[in-house]
Amino acid sequence: MRLGASEDESRVVSEHLVNSNLFGVDSHGVIRIMEYVKGIRAGTIRFRVQPKILKELGCTALVSGEFGLGQITGVRAMNLAIEKAKKFGAGIVGVRDCNHLGRIGEYPMIAARSDMIGAAIVKGPAIVAPYGGRSRMLGANPISFAIPADKKKPILVDFSTCTAAEGKLRLSRSKGEKIPAGWIIDKDGHSTTDPSDFYKGGSILPFGEHKGYGLSVAIEALGGLLAGAGSLTRLVGVNGALMLALNIESFSTISEFKSEVDELITDIKSSPKAKENGEILVPGEVESREYDRRMRQGISVDDATWSEIAGIATDLKIDLKDSRARV
Amino acid sequence: MRLGASEDESRVVSEHLVNSNLFGVDSHGVIRIMEYVKGIRAGTIRFRVQPKILKELGCTALVSGEFGLGQITGVRAMNLAIEKAKKFGAGIVGVRDCNHLGRIGEYPMIAARSDMIGAAIVKGPAIVAPYGGRSRMLGANPISFAIPADKKKPILVDFSTCTAAEGKLRLSRSKGEKIPAGWIIDKDGHSTTDPSDFYKGGSILPFGEHKGYGLSVAIEALGGLLAGAGSLTRLVGVNGALMLALNIESFSTISEFKSEVDELITDIKSSPKAKENGEILVPGEVESREYDRRMRQGISVDDATWSEIAGIATDLKIDLKDSRARV
Repeated sequence: MRLGASEDESRVVSEHLVNSNLFGVDSHGVIRIMEYVKGIRAGTIRFRVQPKILKELGCTALVSGEFGLGQITGVRAMNLAIEKAKKFGAGIVGVRDCNHLGRIGEYPMIAARSDMIGAAIVKGPAIVAPYGGRSRMLGANPISFAIPADKKKPILVDFSTCTAAEGKLRLSRSKGEKIPAGWIIDKDGHSTTDPSDFYKGGSILPFGEHKGYGLSVAIEALGGLLAGAGSLTRLVGVNGALMLALNIESFSTISEFKSEVDELITDIKSSPKAKENGEILVPGEVESREYDRRMRQGISVDDATWSEIAGIATDLKIDLKDSRARV
Repeated sequence: MRLGASEDESRVVSEHLVNSNLFGVDSHGVIRIMEYVKGIRAGTIRFRVQPKILKELGCTALVSGEFGLGQITGVRAMNLAIEKAKKFGAGIVGVRDCNHLGRIGEYPMIAARSDMIGAAIVKGPAIVAPYGGRSRMLGANPISFAIPADKKKPILVDFSTCTAAEGKLRLSRSKGEKIPAGWIIDKDGHSTTDPSDFYKGGSILPFGEHKGYGLSVAIEALGGLLAGAGSLTRLVGVNGALMLALNIESFSTISEFKSEVDELITDIKSSPKAKENGEILVPGEVESREYDRRMRQGISVDDATWSEIAGIATDLKIDLKDSRARV
């Protein structure tokens, strides 16, 4: 708000970032404040603009974020997909001219809270090498599905199609930690465990070899080209996306489907374990446990990140003690 | 046809199997004849039945394959999705009561040949252990996207969400070959390179650790539960599926999109290589090259598979020499 955002814009983005920390996804939490402030100051992030529907045909639409805050664009796009799914059984909305959408799982979850199935694929800035290559071309290109359950928490699948999101490298560098071998290559194509090699022209690798690579290329074409956001290094804005809402009632009844999802979750968790004392988790369970824990114990922010946030706060004459208490 | 199928049914299924061999996907080629003949003789595969639309709302539909040949069901479902995409911008069709769909990439390619984007996710029989478990629960659960290009061949992403399709294990066992470590675990949860351990109660593992596992669980819920086919070990029939066709004109123009896909392909292939003399392939390129090669040189079938096919042929009084020439 001190930078000019409306109260509503500030609330949506702040809640999004803090929620990401609560869910344990620190790479998409308050560490992003610095990049957002930079974008706001550079004029690449605009305030008080409404996402605009550029094209609309039946169950599909193409939305321009008008380079407003990414979260405002993303929420609008998914809500439009949900409206269409109520009418047509499904809604598919392309997103262009869009700033950072943040933690992608957030959007399919809006559909799940409306008793629909949600999905999103997102094209991001070129930081991943194609399978067999050594230059930055593909985005981290996350994919997410949210599937509502009855008594259980929704199934939430949310992952990047590369070995690790760039935010994780930033966090490891910030903490002075090594990263696992196989995550990135340096600018000459050699494997490295030093996250700073990425920032010297290295690339992240696709996950799961040719399979993750294939998924990432499909996302370039759909979340990038089809949405009119451009592909590879020609991305316009920070993200392009395709969001889907699917009306469960087109296929089944909500109550029957949701209780079947409960049963699916129970059965998976009941499998004999590969290792003694092991545990089987369903997608989203790590995040929801972390959410419960952090709601009790608070969010821990590393010193480097906190001092950057503190610097911005001082600069904007915000009393940090108050903010800290609220976090 | 000797077993009672119509000429049309026989042609669709035979072409599908031979095409799979031509594309180099031997695990989904003529090696499947034995299992189909078994299903036909057991009465689980029915002839001369039409897929039936059970439910239809806007751009969505739910189709029962009526336990006919899986390929007949799959082609009908994708064609219905394409019809809906022409009208509504997108079409999403669930598939239940369905026999083996075969090589999944075949269906999205029908959409790509109609200048649409195609996608399919498929729930299969429980042969994969959940991440951290050691019992067969998930299907091989493939996912596929086909994206039309202009002068280039379409991008075709087509992979199972486990380390290897069961057909590959069958083929390795048939050839007496070891498989890579990390593909399967034996019935006690230990890693093994002997494909026969799978057939003694072992399980295949999800690909890409928690990410491939997450995708597989989403496919259980969507290609299984939502389609009314059941999930995990409760699958009714051999496959359940969700097929999508997306009208490019809802977002862009066909000519612009297709030339952008050409450019995407060219750019990816032009990346500096990670290894000297390496090559970067786009998804589907391995298969299309193999197709060209096998169209010239023919399809090689291993002796064990061929002798089984020969046994069936003799049994049905089919002159194998003729068939061999045609293959």
